[in-house]
Amino acid sequence: MATSRWTAPVGTAPPRRRGAVLERAILNAALEQLGEVGWKGLTMEGVAAGAQTGKAAVYRRWPSKEDLVADALEAGLPRAETAPDHGSVREDLLTLCRQVRQILYSAAGIALRAVIHECDHVQAERFQGVIVGGVVEPTVRLLREVIIRGIERGEVRSDAANGYVFDAIPAMMMYRSKVCASEWSNRELEEMVDQLMLPLLRPHAG
Amino acid sequence: MATSRWTAPVGTAPPRRRGAVLERAILNAALEQLGEVGWKGLTMEGVAAGAQTGKAAVYRRWPSKEDLVADALEAGLPRAETAPDHGSVREDLLTLCRQVRQILYSAAGIALRAVIHECDHVQAERFQGVIVGGVVEPTVRLLREVIIRGIERGEVRSDAANGYVFDAIPAMMMYRSKVCASEWSNRELEEMVDQLMLPLLRPHAG
Repeated sequence: MATSRWTAPVGTAPPRRRGAVLERAILNAALEQLGEVGWKGLTMEGVAAGAQTGKAAVYRRWPSKEDLVADALEAGLPRAETAPDHGSVREDLLTLCRQVRQILYSAAGIALRAVIHECDHVQAERFQGVIVGGVVEPTVRLLREVIIRGIERGEVRSDAANGYVFDAIPAMMMYRSKVCASEWSNRELEEMVDQLMLPLLRPHAG
Repeated sequence: MATSRWTAPVGTAPPRRRGAVLERAILNAALEQLGEVGWKGLTMEGVAAGAQTGKAAVYRRWPSKEDLVADALEAGLPRAETAPDHGSVREDLLTLCRQVRQILYSAAGIALRAVIHECDHVQAERFQGVIVGGVVEPTVRLLREVIIRGIERGEVRSDAANGYVFDAIPAMMMYRSKVCASEWSNRELEEMVDQLMLPLLRPHAG
């Protein structure tokens, strides 16, 4: 196997990495630091040390702590890319709810909420944007797909595909996580689908 | 008119007040300070000065800044005591939504959200409790009344009186205030009632 000049040197020296590999190492180190010392404790130096690289390598890519942390959180959030399609709106909604729960309670999800709590108002708006872009918008997109498929099957009323309906699950999940400190057991997710979403979606007489 | 020994002296000296009157002056001063300098800037000395009293009078009633601020916020939140009763679930829900909006955007409501953002995790839990006790629980109690009256009139399905349904309005209102920075226009409140709550509540065939 040919060795390139970027091959990691043998011994105790840190591996020499470039591009995407180094970037990923820095983002991972930032997420780890957030978990350990929080937003206020995190420093560019600390992240560089955690990624076994120099401060300059970090600053070259992220001019500020906000930029770095926003990217680290965004990259760390689990993705829900494809809408479930079980042929039943109940099963699809339950799967989606479990996906949202997984995002909320992932390391990045927990760190994201802690950061928003710790940082100042202007920074908080930026991280709120990470929630919208990384959690809310993808979830609403998948919900829309699930509901539209339900309408096509005649399982869901034809006027249910609107923003208030799409927001109900993210709203309930964030609200109860925050206000009631609920962790959303499987039973609670089922109850929400059965007592809130299915009555909201079913076709009505007349 | 008889003058008691508590009558305010004439001149520049601050009025001598006791009990509930002094307490109210201190709580008002605390709320004012919160609006001006925020949680971090607020001091017991500043509040005492604002209320034209001594620090000891403040500490005698509230041993800590948290205690004082929690009471000030709770006392400052507008109350929604009685459930609207227009004979129509749509009108009742709209009235309730407007009441919640009024609480969220009152001076105390705005200060409460700012304080939760500024303070640490342990303190935040306490102030979260003020939201639950001062906004969420009263709202849910009134919603329950409105929905039960709707069931009695046959306007609402009989199995709609449950916690997931009661939480939908507070959840949506907090979620969109926070995540979408929506201020909830009258039109948006109507849309939420018409597109989310009424389909959720109406009786179903079979």
